[in-house]
Amino acid sequence: METSATIAAARSLFGDRLSLNQTIRETHAHGEANAANTLPDAVIFPETTGEISQLLALCHANRTPVTPFGAGTSLEGHVTPVAGGISLDLTRMNRILAVNDADLDGRVEAGVTRKQLNTYLRDHGLFFPVDPGADCTIGGMCATRASGTNAVRYGTIRDNVLGLRAVLADGTIVDTGGRVRKSATGYDLTRLLIGSEGTLGIITEIQLRLYGIPEAIGAAVCGFATERGAIDAVIEIMQTGIPVARIEYADPDQMAVSIAYSKLDLIAQPTLLFEFHGTARGVAEQAAMAEAITAAHGGQSFAFATETEARNKLWQARHDAYWAARAAFPGHGAFSTDTIVPISNLAEAMEQARESVTASGLRACIVGHVGDGNFHVLILYPDTADGAARAWALDREIVGQALDLGGAASGEHGVGIGKREFMMREHGASALAMMRSIKSALDPRGILNPGKMFLD
Amino acid sequence: METSATIAAARSLFGDRLSLNQTIRETHAHGEANAANTLPDAVIFPETTGEISQLLALCHANRTPVTPFGAGTSLEGHVTPVAGGISLDLTRMNRILAVNDADLDGRVEAGVTRKQLNTYLRDHGLFFPVDPGADCTIGGMCATRASGTNAVRYGTIRDNVLGLRAVLADGTIVDTGGRVRKSATGYDLTRLLIGSEGTLGIITEIQLRLYGIPEAIGAAVCGFATERGAIDAVIEIMQTGIPVARIEYADPDQMAVSIAYSKLDLIAQPTLLFEFHGTARGVAEQAAMAEAITAAHGGQSFAFATETEARNKLWQARHDAYWAARAAFPGHGAFSTDTIVPISNLAEAMEQARESVTASGLRACIVGHVGDGNFHVLILYPDTADGAARAWALDREIVGQALDLGGAASGEHGVGIGKREFMMREHGASALAMMRSIKSALDPRGILNPGKMFLD
Repeated sequence: METSATIAAARSLFGDRLSLNQTIRETHAHGEANAANTLPDAVIFPETTGEISQLLALCHANRTPVTPFGAGTSLEGHVTPVAGGISLDLTRMNRILAVNDADLDGRVEAGVTRKQLNTYLRDHGLFFPVDPGADCTIGGMCATRASGTNAVRYGTIRDNVLGLRAVLADGTIVDTGGRVRKSATGYDLTRLLIGSEGTLGIITEIQLRLYGIPEAIGAAVCGFATERGAIDAVIEIMQTGIPVARIEYADPDQMAVSIAYSKLDLIAQPTLLFEFHGTARGVAEQAAMAEAITAAHGGQSFAFATETEARNKLWQARHDAYWAARAAFPGHGAFSTDTIVPISNLAEAMEQARESVTASGLRACIVGHVGDGNFHVLILYPDTADGAARAWALDREIVGQALDLGGAASGEHGVGIGKREFMMREHGASALAMMRSIKSALDPRGILNPGKMFLD
Repeated sequence: METSATIAAARSLFGDRLSLNQTIRETHAHGEANAANTLPDAVIFPETTGEISQLLALCHANRTPVTPFGAGTSLEGHVTPVAGGISLDLTRMNRILAVNDADLDGRVEAGVTRKQLNTYLRDHGLFFPVDPGADCTIGGMCATRASGTNAVRYGTIRDNVLGLRAVLADGTIVDTGGRVRKSATGYDLTRLLIGSEGTLGIITEIQLRLYGIPEAIGAAVCGFATERGAIDAVIEIMQTGIPVARIEYADPDQMAVSIAYSKLDLIAQPTLLFEFHGTARGVAEQAAMAEAITAAHGGQSFAFATETEARNKLWQARHDAYWAARAAFPGHGAFSTDTIVPISNLAEAMEQARESVTASGLRACIVGHVGDGNFHVLILYPDTADGAARAWALDREIVGQALDLGGAASGEHGVGIGKREFMMREHGASALAMMRSIKSALDPRGILNPGKMFLD
């Protein structure tokens, strides 16, 4: 691969926005995954789709690998340039291009972050609901098919993108979808690019669905005698059709560390956190219905709050779950599994995971976006090579259990490097061959984010 | 194409489920589109995915065209075998394979119809919301990316399918997606097949999302002084986040014929029809909020009904809109346009369409799934060759107007034969080339539903 030829030619296009600096290359060698780092040969900071098109035409001609980079919050190694080449940093493409109040849509460049967008939207009385926790870029969320705590009501990023602009491997600029709410014409290229992890094209602009900020927001927390009781309550709440905006689970281990870290006046027991959106009356009614259902399943202390301060404290504690666990185990590494199962198998999946944790001799906390059946085991391991290896082995075991229970190897973190080995088991040989044949058709030289998604 | 060799070999597989009968071939020569009919060489009635796999391997070897057929309700010629070959009738694959109450999902064969499914689900207290009006098959709905009146709240078929089983051009059986609510692993093959109109694979099984039947359902109807007032009310209702289940528009011409046909005690003026789902209190609150908003935009007579009989009468009238128009214009043909625009351009699009109708000298009624910006102009034309040609020309003009207003050439009927000429204008050369390259990769011999989606 003639990367040096690409770099030489790209320098005249990008000037000092092409960097060979060691420190800059090092910050583009990894996301937040535990995977090994690999340095790119150069980091390029494009400012327009047209520039990316020119660069990719060069890379295509020279067979130079290109790995896109956003906020660097990937947990599965997506942004690590395992084959070297160019790290394409999209963070300078951070313009909010349009907000249409009447249509409840907007258009952003790929480097706009979630928090930047929501800050901007506040004056419009609008918000963008997909919330993976980290302040990731919207482009990165599209590439990894992100979701998060609001997905149970508002859907994942997949459901909230109307169209994309992307640059294909040979530099072709493509516009997919459009501004309409739905369309019945042509292949769904938008959904094909969402979750393709930079292996089919570089997403540069996104047309998003937006939502009015709800008139009222309420939160509630409820402890349970048993984990099964908590999950059964979730199942009944979903069946009843209560339009809960968030419904999160924390197990007693997570609650113990969060109570200490966030100074919560709660008990370390299986716990559900709720958020309700609607009118003031609607929120109160939703909460009352949820309370009645929790009580029937061993819920012991349904506490409802509409005051902003009380709500924020609770949800901040949820967002800090990771840091609470880290603080409780100083000197330990942390590793988050990410599996999803049909909700009817969720209690079983969490029980199996906990048994595996015990057998491994490691410690762990469990949190879950339980409305979706998605849960994370936060594994704490002694910060040694052996400790990391044991955590990795435990993760592999938990993923296997989820797959055996009809689940998927990742609910929201993606495949990247870390989940490639499960693709065959989850999707089967035929679907995997179909994916590879699409990849070959669209990127015949394999320059786009090589080493991700598929085992070579 | 050695169709005779395929038929000879297929006869040993299918016996008398392979038919050369003239009448049967004629019923498989068309859907409900006005397109010219073409006879298939044979009609085959498979009963299993495995049989379809064997057949497609044969067709692939012999380069025999295969056109899938479900309920025959396609409005754009999808089921017409323009290149002859095999019409693959999936209606014998009509088993409901599973319903999982806890997971709110189910699995059906492709030939199950929408009404069959909802009748079955009633005892489970569940329903499947996607409702295009016709009693189409679920497989056909997937293939054409169908939607309908409930899409504003529940989404289209795209949003309500968790996974598919399909047979690819060479006979490979592929399973896409799964039973989980979301997954972040691999290309979204499910969404790629949805809306692919039988050109990438034959869908044989579908894993569906299901919903609890709402505790309460309310309906309302409201007449307006002006069309703009009605549309502005819809925009504000959407912005306010009222979770309306259906919000339909009928223009004065449609109201006039529906009042006569369905004996409605209403006025022939711009009219919105609503349906609300939720708790009894929630439905009443939604209706009160919607009423206040309509009043602010010239709404004159908001009438709310929760009684099943009154609700059903109203929605039956909506479903009979087509027949009401036909009855009012005896001896006329009818032709439904299907365009969608961003809702901020909807009033403008309908005004332009109406001006074109007037200029054409034809008659027309307009109905719309206005929450989505999707509307249909039902063109009534003298039942002569010249009349049909004028209706066709008028349709082309209305599609062009929608595209100029940032819209799509079809909101829900699909491309089929009738909308191929607009694909370039809507999607552009790059996206169209990307679609063709996927088609070539997955169906290199072009045997799957040739002559659809793309102009040759």
